[in-house]
Amino acid sequence: MENNNKLSGFKAWALFGGSMVVVFGLGLLTSALMERRAEVASLFNNRKNMMTGEKIHPQNEDFRSDFPREYQTWRKTEETSFESKYNSSEAVDVLAQRPEMVVLWAGYAFSWDYTTPRGHMHTIEDMTRTLRTGAPDTETTGSNQPGTCWTCKSPDVPRIMQEKGIAEYYKANWAMWGNEIVNPLGCSDCHDPETMDLRISRPALIEAFQRQGKDITKATPQEMRTLVCAQCHVEYYFRDDPATPEKDQYLTFPWDKGFTVEDIEAYYDETGFYDYIHALSKTPILKAQHPGFETCKMGIHGQRGVGCADCHMPYMNEGGVKFSDHHVQSPLNKMDRTCLVCHRESEETLRQNVYERQEKVFDVRNQVEKELAKAHIQAKYAWDNGATEEQMKETLALLRKSQWRWDFAVASHGASFHAPQEVTRILSHSLEYALKAQVEITRTLAKLGHLEEVPMPDISTKEKAQQYLGLDMAGKVAAKEKFLQEIRPKWLEDARAKGKVRDDAYTTVTL
Amino acid sequence: MENNNKLSGFKAWALFGGSMVVVFGLGLLTSALMERRAEVASLFNNRKNMMTGEKIHPQNEDFRSDFPREYQTWRKTEETSFESKYNSSEAVDVLAQRPEMVVLWAGYAFSWDYTTPRGHMHTIEDMTRTLRTGAPDTETTGSNQPGTCWTCKSPDVPRIMQEKGIAEYYKANWAMWGNEIVNPLGCSDCHDPETMDLRISRPALIEAFQRQGKDITKATPQEMRTLVCAQCHVEYYFRDDPATPEKDQYLTFPWDKGFTVEDIEAYYDETGFYDYIHALSKTPILKAQHPGFETCKMGIHGQRGVGCADCHMPYMNEGGVKFSDHHVQSPLNKMDRTCLVCHRESEETLRQNVYERQEKVFDVRNQVEKELAKAHIQAKYAWDNGATEEQMKETLALLRKSQWRWDFAVASHGASFHAPQEVTRILSHSLEYALKAQVEITRTLAKLGHLEEVPMPDISTKEKAQQYLGLDMAGKVAAKEKFLQEIRPKWLEDARAKGKVRDDAYTTVTL
Repeated sequence: MENNNKLSGFKAWALFGGSMVVVFGLGLLTSALMERRAEVASLFNNRKNMMTGEKIHPQNEDFRSDFPREYQTWRKTEETSFESKYNSSEAVDVLAQRPEMVVLWAGYAFSWDYTTPRGHMHTIEDMTRTLRTGAPDTETTGSNQPGTCWTCKSPDVPRIMQEKGIAEYYKANWAMWGNEIVNPLGCSDCHDPETMDLRISRPALIEAFQRQGKDITKATPQEMRTLVCAQCHVEYYFRDDPATPEKDQYLTFPWDKGFTVEDIEAYYDETGFYDYIHALSKTPILKAQHPGFETCKMGIHGQRGVGCADCHMPYMNEGGVKFSDHHVQSPLNKMDRTCLVCHRESEETLRQNVYERQEKVFDVRNQVEKELAKAHIQAKYAWDNGATEEQMKETLALLRKSQWRWDFAVASHGASFHAPQEVTRILSHSLEYALKAQVEITRTLAKLGHLEEVPMPDISTKEKAQQYLGLDMAGKVAAKEKFLQEIRPKWLEDARAKGKVRDDAYTTVTL
Repeated sequence: MENNNKLSGFKAWALFGGSMVVVFGLGLLTSALMERRAEVASLFNNRKNMMTGEKIHPQNEDFRSDFPREYQTWRKTEETSFESKYNSSEAVDVLAQRPEMVVLWAGYAFSWDYTTPRGHMHTIEDMTRTLRTGAPDTETTGSNQPGTCWTCKSPDVPRIMQEKGIAEYYKANWAMWGNEIVNPLGCSDCHDPETMDLRISRPALIEAFQRQGKDITKATPQEMRTLVCAQCHVEYYFRDDPATPEKDQYLTFPWDKGFTVEDIEAYYDETGFYDYIHALSKTPILKAQHPGFETCKMGIHGQRGVGCADCHMPYMNEGGVKFSDHHVQSPLNKMDRTCLVCHRESEETLRQNVYERQEKVFDVRNQVEKELAKAHIQAKYAWDNGATEEQMKETLALLRKSQWRWDFAVASHGASFHAPQEVTRILSHSLEYALKAQVEITRTLAKLGHLEEVPMPDISTKEKAQQYLGLDMAGKVAAKEKFLQEIRPKWLEDARAKGKVRDDAYTTVTL
């Protein structure tokens, strides 16, 4: 009995002592938190470059001393090291991996050159190097693309828009802005330079919201962690106002009817819009850009309110300061700060879960690319053998539907994980329409007296596929080289002379 | 200063007092837990029906007094009330909802009659009532099905196996066991009657594990909460040993190469097995049964170790005793005890998540059923117009692949939720093969001089589709009624006289 009492006494004191320790710990924690908040406040109140009243500040290096952590992690986007078994450390030639895509894009610049995307630091470099932007022969003309193409590449874009007007910026020749757009995608694209608040710098997103009756300035901070990305990682097109004779090439998001593949198709079908006429099948093709925002909304992470930045720019700690990692990359590269924040499984388990979703999507995608390329080739055979427009009408409608779905499903790169079931569903229908087109063509060819299978060209490599299309790739490469050696350096020189870019900027060093 | 000291003193006392309350609460909790365990132990040690040494005890009512909670919830399976927008409170005529299925199963009893499944209490009733089991004209002969068909329907099955031998049980005529199989699926199917431990009562699962080199007796209790269900909710077939002249109809799980739709197809293809020859297209068809276990393993719940019982038989509390709810049903019916155990979202959100997954699957499934039915009809047209076996070979191979995938994806009912992406992937390939078959048939027909689209019969209702197949449905219904009125009551009378079924059993009351 006495023993029990002693024990109880000891327990009570232990409890009391323990409580004191806990309270002391809480005090320390509160102090540390307050110190940390003070440090962040001090950073903002003592900036060396105040940028007061500035709406856009393109030189990323000017932010370096005030925001060293964000700047340094942003500089790391120079390295493109995806920790995924489907990506290597350098840009991969996708056309070499999947040569059917050369056929799918026949008649469009993507059939010349298409590689996996690299980090934000490479926006200017990669855009000038790709064959798709052509080879300007003077300083302001000669590209086959409009100014619109630069829109997602640099904080110089909103500056030019401010200086020259939005419409004027879009409709100029791509080469027109070569000596203006020199700073790669950076700080001022997503942040107000004065307050560093997240803000939308590109008009297309604001306008799309307005047409849907929504005010983007009402977005919450968490929504902004997705919406700043949605300025670029979306489906868009270059709209020409049918009321004006010249080409406007006005960057527009086709969201007026909704965000699904069917909603956006209905939007385009209403005006009969197409990006190009397919060189083999003569189909009016819709080229999907990269509907990352749209597809992400249809997956469980998007539906649960996870923002782009939560996984692609996770928080990190350094010197007592918590900040967003600006080395935007695959979340599989830093799973301890991404997946594991919510999921309790091992890294290896989660990684395999991701791969499994991707593999199931690729399983269907590969069949689509094979059958859709085949259908385009068969359609050309039908045309060549005298098929009439009336006979081909249904086939072309089916091919348009099939290709739109395929491209929507694959173009955003991440969709196979962001919304695996939706993407598999979309690809099912793509495969369905490609094969229905084959049924149509088979019947049409039979009516024209051709009963055997259509002979297939050898498209087993990128080169063979490009040769089949009769593309002068050597000529395109030579012209590009000439441009890179003769015109491109003048653009940069001019920009430096005008103070548009600092001597320590990434582009200045590499271009 | 003095005030502060007073406050600290008050805080210390509050902390001390609070701790005392917590400790007192812990004591109460421990006591309650111990009492509860004692109650459960007491239940087991003081059974009124000890069933010592019994391996099987078919009369479910004999368990009632010892396990009233489990028995009462099991009795509730009499009610089939799915809280899903895709299920109504009664068995639904699926053929009436989707008449293409009549065409898909042409040449097989499923084209006569197929309804949504009802609860475990209805196993005997539904099996005797369905047109698929035919209309025995004597007490032991006349069905078109073997004894094997009863295997999942009653705890009388392992009893007969014990008494007559497994092989003898399978190969008898279905009618042979009509006066023996009288207790609906119940206690002894999953529990050892003496210890009430979960155990496997059916040989097919044990044998499948053995062929894979696994010992099912090594399964953990949590694994058993899935494996007892996997005795029945799986893909299986009736195997005939090619070495023996008579039909064995030996229930076999085709898992030797793995669990995926491709693995199981490879297993069947190896021996050229088929369930029936399609009445229209002459395709050797693989009829999928209900691969719930296999598909569930391919979804995230299965991969995370969630057992069937966790969602379909969740724990509940009554009178201080925790037990498994034996009213097996849709987890959407009791979300507070199923989904919400792990997920923190609202019931409404989770319900919509489930529906969204199902709708995406159904979107593809509906296209498959339309195009595959069309392909079978087109194939018949080709045969009717003189196509040769050589010309139809590729078409039949494609139709077999397509139909196997379709049936595997839809037959288990839950797969659209259990593994939504895998099921969408499987259906994509089903659609692919159905349309490739259409391409083949189109070319074959063209070679036979038929250049126009194949005329389609009206299969817009179940009745019209059955009429198209030339089925004598009135004759089948009349024969069934005669059997139910003349033969069926004798079976039950005989069973009662022999003491095989108690007077208060569900079947005794309803049949």
